[in-house]
Amino acid sequence: MTDHVSVREVGLRDGLQLVSTILPTKTKLEWCQEQAAAGFREIEVTSFVPPSILPQFSDAAEVLSGALAIDGLLASTLVPNLKGAVRAMDAGARKITFVLSASEAHNQSNVRRSTDESLAMFREVMEERASRNLVDEIQIAGVIAKSFGCSLQGSVSESRVCEIANLMAGYGADEINVADTVGYANPVQVERLLQKVDSVTGAVPIAAHFHDTRGMGLANVAAGVRVGVRRFDASLGGLGGCPFAPGATGNIATEDCVYLLESIGLSTGIDMQALLEVREKLNNWLTDERLEGRLSKVGVAKTFS
Amino acid sequence: MTDHVSVREVGLRDGLQLVSTILPTKTKLEWCQEQAAAGFREIEVTSFVPPSILPQFSDAAEVLSGALAIDGLLASTLVPNLKGAVRAMDAGARKITFVLSASEAHNQSNVRRSTDESLAMFREVMEERASRNLVDEIQIAGVIAKSFGCSLQGSVSESRVCEIANLMAGYGADEINVADTVGYANPVQVERLLQKVDSVTGAVPIAAHFHDTRGMGLANVAAGVRVGVRRFDASLGGLGGCPFAPGATGNIATEDCVYLLESIGLSTGIDMQALLEVREKLNNWLTDERLEGRLSKVGVAKTFS
Repeated sequence: MTDHVSVREVGLRDGLQLVSTILPTKTKLEWCQEQAAAGFREIEVTSFVPPSILPQFSDAAEVLSGALAIDGLLASTLVPNLKGAVRAMDAGARKITFVLSASEAHNQSNVRRSTDESLAMFREVMEERASRNLVDEIQIAGVIAKSFGCSLQGSVSESRVCEIANLMAGYGADEINVADTVGYANPVQVERLLQKVDSVTGAVPIAAHFHDTRGMGLANVAAGVRVGVRRFDASLGGLGGCPFAPGATGNIATEDCVYLLESIGLSTGIDMQALLEVREKLNNWLTDERLEGRLSKVGVAKTFS
Repeated sequence: MTDHVSVREVGLRDGLQLVSTILPTKTKLEWCQEQAAAGFREIEVTSFVPPSILPQFSDAAEVLSGALAIDGLLASTLVPNLKGAVRAMDAGARKITFVLSASEAHNQSNVRRSTDESLAMFREVMEERASRNLVDEIQIAGVIAKSFGCSLQGSVSESRVCEIANLMAGYGADEINVADTVGYANPVQVERLLQKVDSVTGAVPIAAHFHDTRGMGLANVAAGVRVGVRRFDASLGGLGGCPFAPGATGNIATEDCVYLLESIGLSTGIDMQALLEVREKLNNWLTDERLEGRLSKVGVAKTFS
């Protein structure tokens, strides 16, 4: 098993999605630039959703275009449907993360269609890519939200998550992202479900996306590592929050996640000091937002190298 | 391996030790009472240190006396030296946690003697108990602070931690508490060191004490569980902070710790709802302190039972 682990920054998408401050395009690109310089190889830079729903991302094409120009950076972008995927491809996307929910209730609430309908749409996105002859140029990841439970419908069946993962892999997904956007996952469940998913996705790599809503985010990362997952999403300063509970914590903080991974002997390729400097800048870019994360308050341990 | 796990509340000692608000004795006892009613079987209620050093604990004997009267509660108390142990025994203590540091630098800084001298003193405490014919009436735990590294001296040798644990067990310790009070531990290190300690302490149970200073507190609890540890310290609302970094997080939050343990299928005997109600009261008891913990902001998951 490799000791390299990839941390994908999602603060510019999952983080900014939930804050009220509209960050200028220039600042978004400065953020991308700085974090790429700190060693990040992939950043989810924006979301191709209707600007009427999320004004934060009305500059999606511009941000993507700017991020594509950053040397060595894979700029990924989230899409919730075919229309978003088409816009992303038109804008030159090299990696698209298509999100659907394993929870019927959440999928209906989020995109007003059934999970099966979203799966069919995922297939159409793959066909769109093929029709453009861009199969080798654009990676497409399938994100399975609410894989560990849903705040609307409660429990989500693990066999359903595996079924979705299996279908997405069969359609040609380049990555399956198993996501817990409500902080419902616990370490034992993470080990169990990620192993099950791995058994149905063959060679397709698995990524995991955890929120720290109930404090278990990093424990879940450690659990994912134990069963061989080597791709994790995180948000600088834990930016993001939770739409259902004001003041609650959102994504795991990137700096704490990288610190955990490096501490247990894995290699992220990220310069910890440079990362903490970008984290410091985030305070200035988002003066009205409450940021989370432990490491930024205290710095690395004397024993850390 | 048992599925019962014991969570010891240390907020009244480790938490209050670092806050500026002096909590009235009556409130301390109300806190003990409420948390015992929520299912806690052990609470570290105070510390027998010189009141000139920690005025917060000038009511140590009174608090201990009140806590001893709470039905079903084991009221433990911390001591840093023989004098404190004598005071605790005089006050009727049933469990004493004697703390020393595996870091020479920290032990010198904390109690102005070498770790070996503290070990010799631990032996004197055991003899004091024996001379009072109270071996079966008073439990004595040995706490090994800075077991995972020290903010003063840096790394701490694992063989030294094991040596100390082995000696304390040989002297008759009823529990060995492996402590990380600076948030230096990571999950891989936790598994490794706790297994090593377990191999030298024979039948003496191991407890673990983690701080969340760098975000890994609960990941470390999960790691401890995996290698069989079934006793954990935690502080309500993560009360405590860090003396070396203003604003930094201290102990892991009791409510988040209990929630993790129950989520992964262990039984704490604690009523989650009742615990969250005590947590709510803590906001009123300590209006000037910044409390931590995730769960109190958002509540349990819909899937939690």
